[in-house]
Amino acid sequence: MPNPFFKNFGPFKISDILTALNINNENKLNSDEVIDINDLFTAARNEITFFHSKKYIDIAKKTKASFCITNKILKNELPRTCIPLVVENVLISTSNITAKFYPEAINDNFDNSVKNINQTKFNDKVKFGQNVLIGNNVSIGSNCQIGHNTIIEQNVSIGSNCSIGSNVIIRNTLIKDYAKILDNCVVGKHGFGFFPSNNKNLRYPHIGIVLIEENCEIGCGSTIDRGSMSNTVIGKNTYLDNQIHIAHNVKIGQNSIIAGQVGIAGSSIIGNNVKIGGQAGISGHLKIGNNVEIGGGSGVIKDIPDNAKVMGYPAKNIREFLRENKWFIRQQ
Amino acid sequence: MPNPFFKNFGPFKISDILTALNINNENKLNSDEVIDINDLFTAARNEITFFHSKKYIDIAKKTKASFCITNKILKNELPRTCIPLVVENVLISTSNITAKFYPEAINDNFDNSVKNINQTKFNDKVKFGQNVLIGNNVSIGSNCQIGHNTIIEQNVSIGSNCSIGSNVIIRNTLIKDYAKILDNCVVGKHGFGFFPSNNKNLRYPHIGIVLIEENCEIGCGSTIDRGSMSNTVIGKNTYLDNQIHIAHNVKIGQNSIIAGQVGIAGSSIIGNNVKIGGQAGISGHLKIGNNVEIGGGSGVIKDIPDNAKVMGYPAKNIREFLRENKWFIRQQ
Amino acid sequence: MPNPFFKNFGPFKISDILTALNINNENKLNSDEVIDINDLFTAARNEITFFHSKKYIDIAKKTKASFCITNKILKNELPRTCIPLVVENVLISTSNITAKFYPEAINDNFDNSVKNINQTKFNDKVKFGQNVLIGNNVSIGSNCQIGHNTIIEQNVSIGSNCSIGSNVIIRNTLIKDYAKILDNCVVGKHGFGFFPSNNKNLRYPHIGIVLIEENCEIGCGSTIDRGSMSNTVIGKNTYLDNQIHIAHNVKIGQNSIIAGQVGIAGSSIIGNNVKIGGQAGISGHLKIGNNVEIGGGSGVIKDIPDNAKVMGYPAKNIREFLRENKWFIRQQ
Repeated sequence: MPNPFFKNFGPFKISDILTALNINNENKLNSDEVIDINDLFTAARNEITFFHSKKYIDIAKKTKASFCITNKILKNELPRTCIPLVVENVLISTSNITAKFYPEAINDNFDNSVKNINQTKFNDKVKFGQNVLIGNNVSIGSNCQIGHNTIIEQNVSIGSNCSIGSNVIIRNTLIKDYAKILDNCVVGKHGFGFFPSNNKNLRYPHIGIVLIEENCEIGCGSTIDRGSMSNTVIGKNTYLDNQIHIAHNVKIGQNSIIAGQVGIAGSSIIGNNVKIGGQAGISGHLKIGNNVEIGGGSGVIKDIPDNAKVMGYPAKNIREFLRENKWFIRQQ
Repeated sequence: MPNPFFKNFGPFKISDILTALNINNENKLNSDEVIDINDLFTAARNEITFFHSKKYIDIAKKTKASFCITNKILKNELPRTCIPLVVENVLISTSNITAKFYPEAINDNFDNSVKNINQTKFNDKVKFGQNVLIGNNVSIGSNCQIGHNTIIEQNVSIGSNCSIGSNVIIRNTLIKDYAKILDNCVVGKHGFGFFPSNNKNLRYPHIGIVLIEENCEIGCGSTIDRGSMSNTVIGKNTYLDNQIHIAHNVKIGQNSIIAGQVGIAGSSIIGNNVKIGGQAGISGHLKIGNNVEIGGGSGVIKDIPDNAKVMGYPAKNIREFLRENKWFIRQQ
Repeated sequence: MPNPFFKNFGPFKISDILTALNINNENKLNSDEVIDINDLFTAARNEITFFHSKKYIDIAKKTKASFCITNKILKNELPRTCIPLVVENVLISTSNITAKFYPEAINDNFDNSVKNINQTKFNDKVKFGQNVLIGNNVSIGSNCQIGHNTIIEQNVSIGSNCSIGSNVIIRNTLIKDYAKILDNCVVGKHGFGFFPSNNKNLRYPHIGIVLIEENCEIGCGSTIDRGSMSNTVIGKNTYLDNQIHIAHNVKIGQNSIIAGQVGIAGSSIIGNNVKIGGQAGISGHLKIGNNVEIGGGSGVIKDIPDNAKVMGYPAKNIREFLRENKWFIRQQ
C-alpha cells in the first residue's frame, strides 16, 4: 500500500541511494530503481528496508525487499533476493534515506494550508463550531460534528457520524465511523523519536499515521503520536479516558478500556478486551495479550500473556502482588 | 432540588416506565406519576431510584423513593413505601430510565448554541479576551474575567470575582466566588462511565454537575468530569496544581492541596485539609479522611482514616513505608 | 541583573520596609534605600534577601545583601555587612516584601494587552497561523513560526528559527534559537506556590521567568511554570516529550531526554545528559547529577549522584531494584 498521506519523492536510482549512504558502488548497481522504503515485514520488491537488531532475524530471512540497510554482522541473514547495504549506524542511515523519500515527514510545524471551514466544501456537510480550520487533503463523512477552535490539519480522513470536540488538533490521521475525539486532544503529531546528539538532536521522519477505528472514544487532553515507520492504531470500540498518552507505533486492539492518565510507550502492542487502570504505564516494545487486566498505577516492564491480571511496579501477577502486600491486606 | 441544568422530560406514568423496563405490570400501576430519578439517598416521594449492591443496604432501608430499580435478591431490603422494580441488570436499566428523564445528558457534543461574548449581555459586565464564546443558560457574577478562546458552554453559573484563563472549556458547572480556573482546563464533561459491550459500548447519562466552591484554584490543563447521578465537588479554598484529573462523582473537601498530575478515580471522597503529593493516584469509590497526607507518587487502593500519613504503592502508613525501605534510608 | 520582565516598583526606604514588616525601627535605619529583593546567593549590596532554613547557612554566611528577612535563631549566621530583620514567619514576610517590589507578579489573569499579530510589527517578519495574539513587551527573532490560536502574552522573548505550535500560551519566558514548543503547552505561568490558610490561601509573587535554551523541544500539552525567586530553566538541546509538568524553579541541564508524563516538583535541579523514563516523578528540592538514568515510573525522593542508574519507587540503584524483584526476573 502506498503511504496514504506523505508524498513519496522517489523513486530513486540505487546508485543515488548508495551515494547518500557513502557506500562505494562496488557492484555497479546503477539502473535499479528503488520505489519506496518500508519495514522488513512490509517492504516489497524494488523497495528498500532496514535491519538493525537480531530480534528481527526471523522476519529478515523472509523479507521481500530488494535492498536492506544493515550492518556487517546481520547482512548474512538476508535472503539472496535482498542486497545488503552495509553501514556503520543502521538507524541513522535509515533515517537519512527515509528523509530522502519523505522529506515532509520530519517536522511538524503548524499547518499553514488551513482555511476556515466555511470557505471549504464542508460548509454545508458538517455541523461545525466557530473558528474551525481545515487543511489540505482532508475528507469528512456524513453527519459529523467539529467543535470550536478545532484544527483539522492536512492529511486527515474522518468517517461518518464522528464527533470531534473543541480545541482539538489532528493531522496525518484516519478516523473511522462513529468515533469521538474529545476536547483538547492532539492526534497525529510525530513521536518522541530522534537520535540524541550533543548540541542538536537529529529528528527522524515519522511516515506512519494514526488509525482510529470505529466507535472509539478518545478522552479530553489526550495525545496520540503517529507512527515512525508503521502506524499507531486504536482498535474498534476501544475507549480512552482523559489525559492519556499513546506514543508512536503503539497498536491497541478492540474493545479495550483505558483509564485516565495512562501512558503507553513507543511500539508496544496491546491486545483485545484489555482493561488498564488509571495512571498505569507500559514500557516500550512490549506485547500485552488479549483479555489482560492491568491494575491502576502499575508499571509494566515485560510482556504479559493472554488473560493475565497484573498489578504493581514492576507489574506482576495480581495474586503475587497481594501476597507481597500481606500486611496491607490484613489491615483492611 | 430539581436538577439545576438538565431538562427533566418527565413526569412519566409508572406504566410507561414499566414498559421501558420490559416489566409485566402485574400490580396494575397506572395512574402513579414518577417525577424524577435520583440516588437512594436523595430520591424523594414519587421519584424512582436504583439499588444494585449490598454495599448500600443501610441507605436503601431508609430511601424515600416510591419506586426502585433493583434485583431479586436486594428487593426485600427496601421499605414498604418503595415498590421494587425487579430487572436483570440494574445499572443498564437505570441508565435507560435516566436517559428517558434526561435524554440531553448522554452526549457531550460541542455546544452549538454559543455566541461571541460581545453579542451577549455580558459584553459590559465581564472583562474578556478575544474569541470568547458563551452558551445558553450561563450566568456570570460581577468583576469576573475570562481569557482568550475560552468557551463557556451551556449550563454554567460563575460567581463574582472569578478568573477564568484562556483556552478553557466549561459546561454543566457551578463556580462560586473568587474561584480561578487556569488555562487549558476542561470542566464539566461527562465522566468515563459506560457499559462495556462488544462492538459498541453503551454510554449512560451523566446528570450530575461540577461544583467548584469559593476561593478554589484549578491548575492548567486539568480535567474535571461532572457526576453521573450525584455531583463532582471541589470544596472551598482547595487548590489543584496542573494536569490533574478528577473523575466523575469525586468530592473533595475544603482547604485541601493537590499537587501536579494527581488522578482521582470515580466516586472517591476526599476530606478537608488533605495534602496529596504529585502524581499520586487514588482508586475509585474510596473514602479519604480529614487531615490526611498522601506522599507523591503513592497509589491509594483502600480507605484512609482521618489524620493518617501514607505513602507507597499500595499506599501504607508512612512509617511502615520507610521501614520497608530501610536500606534506602541508611544510604542517605 | 535587573528582573527582565517584572516592573520593580522600588527602591524603597528601609524604614518603609520595616513598617511593612511590623518591625520596630530600633536602629533608626532611615535613609538607606533598598533597590531590589533577591535570594541569598544572588542578592547584591543595597538589596534585601531572606533566610529561613539551616539548609542555606553556607550561602547565608557569604551573602552580599545589605538586609535579610530571617528569624531569631538564624540571624547570627549572617555576615556583619547584612542587617537581619527578624520576623515570626520568614516566608510570609518575604512574600509581602516581594509583593511590594513586584505587585504585578502575583496574579496570572489573562493578558488583556494582546493584539492580533497582524496588527503588530511581526506581521511581516513571522510566519503565523490564524488568530495569533501578541502581548506587550514581546520580541521575536527571524525565521520563526507561530501556530493557530497561540497566545504570546506579555514579557516573552523568542530567538530566531523557533517553531511554536498551535493553542500554545506563553508569558514571562525567554526562548533561545531553534527551540520548539509543540501544541497545547502552557509556559511561564506562576507555580503552585502559596501559603496555605483556612478559607483563603495566600499566593506569593513569582518574579522568576522560564528560560528555554537553544534547540530545546517541549512536547504537546506540557506545562512549565516560571520561578518564584529564581528562574525555571530547560537547558540547551534538552527534549521533553508530551504531557510533562515542570514546576517552578526547576533547572534542567543540557542534552537531557525526558519521556512522556514525567513530573518534576519545585526547585529540583537536574544535570546534563540525564535520561528520565515515562511517568517518572521527581520530588521537590532534589539534586540529580549528570549522566543519570531514571527508569520509567520511578519515584525519586532523594538526591542522585552523577552517573547513577536508578529505578523504583522509591528510586534506588537499578541493580538493587532488579535484585529485589528477583522472582520477576526469573520469570522472564
